[in-house]
Amino acid sequence: MSTRNREIHLAARPQGWPTADNFRLVETEVPTPGPGQIVVRNRYVSVDPYMRGRMNDVRSYVPPFALDAPLDGGAVGEVVASEAEGLQPGDTVLHGLGWREYALLDARAARKVDPDLAPVSAYLSVLGMTGLTAYAGLLDVAGMKAGETVFVSAAAGAVGSLVGQIAKLRGAAHVVGSAGSAAKVERLRALGFDAAFDYHDGPVRDSLKAAAPDGVDVYFDNVGGDHLEAAISAMKVHGRAAICGMIAQYNDTEPPAAPRNLALVIGKRLTLRGFLVGDHGHLRDEFVREMAGWLRDGRVSYDETVVDGIENAPEAFLGLLRGENLGKMLVRV
Amino acid sequence: MSTRNREIHLAARPQGWPTADNFRLVETEVPTPGPGQIVVRNRYVSVDPYMRGRMNDVRSYVPPFALDAPLDGGAVGEVVASEAEGLQPGDTVLHGLGWREYALLDARAARKVDPDLAPVSAYLSVLGMTGLTAYAGLLDVAGMKAGETVFVSAAAGAVGSLVGQIAKLRGAAHVVGSAGSAAKVERLRALGFDAAFDYHDGPVRDSLKAAAPDGVDVYFDNVGGDHLEAAISAMKVHGRAAICGMIAQYNDTEPPAAPRNLALVIGKRLTLRGFLVGDHGHLRDEFVREMAGWLRDGRVSYDETVVDGIENAPEAFLGLLRGENLGKMLVRV
Repeated sequence: MSTRNREIHLAARPQGWPTADNFRLVETEVPTPGPGQIVVRNRYVSVDPYMRGRMNDVRSYVPPFALDAPLDGGAVGEVVASEAEGLQPGDTVLHGLGWREYALLDARAARKVDPDLAPVSAYLSVLGMTGLTAYAGLLDVAGMKAGETVFVSAAAGAVGSLVGQIAKLRGAAHVVGSAGSAAKVERLRALGFDAAFDYHDGPVRDSLKAAAPDGVDVYFDNVGGDHLEAAISAMKVHGRAAICGMIAQYNDTEPPAAPRNLALVIGKRLTLRGFLVGDHGHLRDEFVREMAGWLRDGRVSYDETVVDGIENAPEAFLGLLRGENLGKMLVRV
Repeated sequence: MSTRNREIHLAARPQGWPTADNFRLVETEVPTPGPGQIVVRNRYVSVDPYMRGRMNDVRSYVPPFALDAPLDGGAVGEVVASEAEGLQPGDTVLHGLGWREYALLDARAARKVDPDLAPVSAYLSVLGMTGLTAYAGLLDVAGMKAGETVFVSAAAGAVGSLVGQIAKLRGAAHVVGSAGSAAKVERLRALGFDAAFDYHDGPVRDSLKAAAPDGVDVYFDNVGGDHLEAAISAMKVHGRAAICGMIAQYNDTEPPAAPRNLALVIGKRLTLRGFLVGDHGHLRDEFVREMAGWLRDGRVSYDETVVDGIENAPEAFLGLLRGENLGKMLVRV
């Protein structure tokens, strides 16, 4: 095997929108495993919106990325060297050390997956954290019930597109998605959304009102800002919002003013609940079983936008923040 | 009995802060009950922050007050004439037609109360909607558990002072209240709050951090704005906010910008839930039993600020919005 490893370091913390200058491609040697460790040749690494927050030097639910050190995140690849029981070269594993070609990690931090059950990239998207985020947020956090109306923002993204499809499969009466281009809106219709709009076409509040004239029971928020404000206005009595992300403001240097209509939560008895998928691991088995069935039956589709080469991971991440992806944004190593 | 009745009409809808000109004292005749109806001589009428919202001509959870018609709201008084089964002159009843000396209503819209169990005014405060609001919001909506830290704003008000005391009685480890004067802060300490601050003394965020350095599990919001923003900053992982009122912004003509830190709900997995006491009637019996016991044992104190004369009801309401009350603001008729 090659002895050269390449990885992406955080060269500088972005102020506002990140740029290529915030990243650095670094060449190292492929590491050698110690006792209990494995070395994984990554095949796909994930870039996700939440990573933007980790680039700031602030305490959050996960520690910030360190400067002049490799970034990390979800990855899937093959074991190429092992000093651990239970994992052999050739095994495919899911782990948390992305943004690099070769990863050295404790075997306990890797989860073996079946490459014959699904394309290995699916373990980073529809069958992985992405899918569980959609499933847990919609059904557990927001408690969606059959017959309800659901609105999801960033609906052509990895999580959003699954939220809408799971909602329909679980009996939602009306599912609305917002996205950032006409092509994405068209894709949402093909995925079975009952209504979809391009948020550039006018105030979100007006577009949502037209798409869900009778109001919204459940809002799955990936965007924040004007989307959340519009959803609060549109929500019916006892509506629930699962707050998954606020990508609209991740690059803001000033705190956002919205939502300005938060007082509506009282009269409409709304619940806004933030969540992280890590709190919902108890649903993983149920989720995998149900999702695998839907995939087998062709009832769920998922999109991937794949960028080749670890050297292009920063550009993939920047493209994600600009909304250039359809579905899951991945880097093929 | 007198044949003269006096009542307060809404003369004009306030823009921003209401003034005396928005109200009109109107003399009418004491009405005569029809079949199934009673006439009540009101003894106490309630003025509440939520009434400000009903003075606007907007759809909300209760219809707006009509112009040139009497205002309404909680009241307690004695039946003086009855054409209904089950209610006799002399009975004390709780009902919804305040802001007037004599009320004509269907007997079904009145609830008989025991004037010997508690001062009749208590049915508008500690034993009534006010007390149930505190009880349901803290225990049911926010799900406070023993050992937690609780923050309540407008803590010297009718609801807030009960929230703090119920929290302590139910085992909260640390209870913090904010109020609008040094005298109120002193009163909170006397009521058993572990810490209290005057929100005029500095940024709420700083005062709250000093009063609850280890963070807050439960926030009971009566104020909104900077209080809610400070609470979101102070809340621990899995914190819950019961949103009861946002008095800080009821008179705003422009929508408020806060909270600017709402994105924190994700990483901290916070739940913000608006509520109305009307959804929690199933707790009424349990509440009355528990609160009556606390009152009997002298473990709960409640304050009332009483203004005499129906002609002074507008001034009582305006004083409430200015925070001039300690505990429940009532008009004695």
